[in-house]
Amino acid sequence: MAQTINTTTKFPKVVIIGGGFGGIELAKKLAGKEVEILMLDKHNYHTFQPLLYQVATGGLEPDSIAFPLRKIFKGQKNFKFRITEVKKIIPELKIVESTIGDISYDYLIIATGSATNFFGQNEIEHFSMPMKTIPEALNLRSMILQNLEEALLEPELIRKDALLNFVVVGGGPTGVELSGALAELKTHVLPKDYPELDISQMDIYLVEGSPAVLGVMSENASKAAKKFLEEMGVTVLTDVKVEAYDGKLISLSTGQTIHTKNVLWSAGVKGQIPEGITPENIVRGGRIKVNEYNAIEGLNDIFAIGDVAAMVSEQYPGGHPGVAPVAIQQGKHLAKNLIRVVNNEKPEPFKYFDKGSMATVGRNRAVVDIGKIRFQGVFAWFVWMFVHLMSLVGFRNKVVTFVNWVWNYFSYDRGTRLIIRKFNRKSMTEEPISK
Amino acid sequence: MAQTINTTTKFPKVVIIGGGFGGIELAKKLAGKEVEILMLDKHNYHTFQPLLYQVATGGLEPDSIAFPLRKIFKGQKNFKFRITEVKKIIPELKIVESTIGDISYDYLIIATGSATNFFGQNEIEHFSMPMKTIPEALNLRSMILQNLEEALLEPELIRKDALLNFVVVGGGPTGVELSGALAELKTHVLPKDYPELDISQMDIYLVEGSPAVLGVMSENASKAAKKFLEEMGVTVLTDVKVEAYDGKLISLSTGQTIHTKNVLWSAGVKGQIPEGITPENIVRGGRIKVNEYNAIEGLNDIFAIGDVAAMVSEQYPGGHPGVAPVAIQQGKHLAKNLIRVVNNEKPEPFKYFDKGSMATVGRNRAVVDIGKIRFQGVFAWFVWMFVHLMSLVGFRNKVVTFVNWVWNYFSYDRGTRLIIRKFNRKSMTEEPISK
Repeated sequence: MAQTINTTTKFPKVVIIGGGFGGIELAKKLAGKEVEILMLDKHNYHTFQPLLYQVATGGLEPDSIAFPLRKIFKGQKNFKFRITEVKKIIPELKIVESTIGDISYDYLIIATGSATNFFGQNEIEHFSMPMKTIPEALNLRSMILQNLEEALLEPELIRKDALLNFVVVGGGPTGVELSGALAELKTHVLPKDYPELDISQMDIYLVEGSPAVLGVMSENASKAAKKFLEEMGVTVLTDVKVEAYDGKLISLSTGQTIHTKNVLWSAGVKGQIPEGITPENIVRGGRIKVNEYNAIEGLNDIFAIGDVAAMVSEQYPGGHPGVAPVAIQQGKHLAKNLIRVVNNEKPEPFKYFDKGSMATVGRNRAVVDIGKIRFQGVFAWFVWMFVHLMSLVGFRNKVVTFVNWVWNYFSYDRGTRLIIRKFNRKSMTEEPISK
Repeated sequence: MAQTINTTTKFPKVVIIGGGFGGIELAKKLAGKEVEILMLDKHNYHTFQPLLYQVATGGLEPDSIAFPLRKIFKGQKNFKFRITEVKKIIPELKIVESTIGDISYDYLIIATGSATNFFGQNEIEHFSMPMKTIPEALNLRSMILQNLEEALLEPELIRKDALLNFVVVGGGPTGVELSGALAELKTHVLPKDYPELDISQMDIYLVEGSPAVLGVMSENASKAAKKFLEEMGVTVLTDVKVEAYDGKLISLSTGQTIHTKNVLWSAGVKGQIPEGITPENIVRGGRIKVNEYNAIEGLNDIFAIGDVAAMVSEQYPGGHPGVAPVAIQQGKHLAKNLIRVVNNEKPEPFKYFDKGSMATVGRNRAVVDIGKIRFQGVFAWFVWMFVHLMSLVGFRNKVVTFVNWVWNYFSYDRGTRLIIRKFNRKSMTEEPISK
């Protein structure tokens, strides 16, 4: 079945798979140019992934960090959008197979981002919680609250302990931010909500396989983050790997075991690669190898940007880091290059401008690296908040998030600990939408 | 299996089923009194039902109109809460059977509110959308947005029409507010989001079986509401009943048929009566008959308040209207009576103080009846907003809702048209949580 999406002009058709940071930037920069854009995404909204952990821990509602894609491109005449899941790319026919039919393209941009990587450990994948999408963050929130309610009813001590213990796997920014947020819930919110529970029984562990948390940042940042987490009551285990998890007991490479029903997995990502990309184009980390123009060599007119792409260079032997600024800069750059290509001009190679990196651990506690400048603590925390607030798409989202943050700061509270949809592992594994 | 919920005192145990307006008010007024309170609810939050239609139409997020029950009673020492579903009441044993085990009581208060009533029309129930809970409102929002996306892809004219047509059944406050909100979406939001669709093809019908919309209010209010709706483009059909609906075509008592995939049902409610209440205690409208002390006669120490209760009197032959102020006043009054009963004093009969009623149709358009005082239009709209804002539980909810309303007013926009969880009818009928 061929999908008819009306072509009103003779301009080349640019199909973008994915409405993340890269896809959006690309489509915006092509506004008013002589191309026709069609964006495809599974969801009708853009997700601001850096703040997903606040949705999971009840600090923000989904609408603060999500933005309707149609609204972003309101009034952009050369832009069309469809909700669909891409099944396969057929480069020879210049066609994308999707759940709404076949879609033809002149230029195809894969901007599908990354998914959680469990490195083939199926049992761990089944029992632990990923957090890469809004439905996943909401599942996590429901699960945390449901386990606390269950702990109230549980007479057996080990089972009660398992309901109260949290193990966050992976000490990157997500793992650090998530375990910090859990520690704040434990200190400021839960004792008031659950006076019947002895919240001091709740233990939070952060397990990291490498020798340091925030390993991608400076040593100063790593050390400060570890210190902050420990001050807040998180047990930080570095150089430790997860060996097994059966839904009740997690076994670590040190031989230690922890009874827990709450394992949050942020230990790895891999590119979300659509079918039809040949294995020789896929490199370590499950990303698509691209050249300095973000083109996939050997495939005509197919490009990849952002997390899913690996532009290998001397400075970045594994490709650029999987962060929003890379996706944004590649989207912007590719837009210019596409126009050059359409006009038979020579494209220019991409060059990444690293603006620095930052992570927050908790109230008044963050770490910032900007080139050689490194600082930690209260000022870093304000910088972190300002940068994230400004990066949110849409003025309304900025306002609502700001109001929530100010509220949370002064009340020591989290507004939204509602179980709107009950989480159950069965529905999660069977219903594709919540995966 | 008997559920142990620790009893720390010898005070009588008051079990309240339901955390709606009535249950909350009752439990609050018993703070510091010599009773032990246990509240049971399916959800961990209180729902402000009067604004559910704004969640369904993307004007507000769930967290603005929901409030965690544990947080409401933070610090109230004689209060405990459990998430559970009540299966059955056994008055002879003074026990409630629930999904977390048997719970004993000295006094039992049924404050379970009302559910959607389809009057035994199973096919209509299967295919149309109710809106009494937050999951239902979110399902409705997802369905509306998904049908618009599908309309973009639908080449067949009648099927496309069916995706764009909306039929709201029931011209009470909910039906009026819902069809008004749909009309505003049609005028201000959808043309920008869906430039490819001819939104003028979208028709909104409000179908009411009696001769007037807002029949419970004054004639002035009814007439004004009808006029407002028609100005906004809603086709108001009064004295018309729905005969059948098969998911595609709705048949009306006039013989008229409308192709539609969007039927929103707000035509009736019935009490949510737990098993164990004998049929002789249930009156018309599926409510529990109570005496002037809210007690169920023939059952010792069992009371019912709010929507689920029918206190039949000369002035209210069918019981009081199913609105929040009745539930609140009955909760407050029953608290005083329970204390009187515990102290071996004589309880006092309940008397309803009718503060008036109001409904909003759209921007600058509302109707208000306060005793003999009746007004409609811009001022009524401000009164409506003020009263609803002040009635919201929690200061944070008031602030967030206010910010959203100001934003919506000036931008002519609705912030949150996100499909977070895909709606499909199968999951709705099979998964109890979304019912």
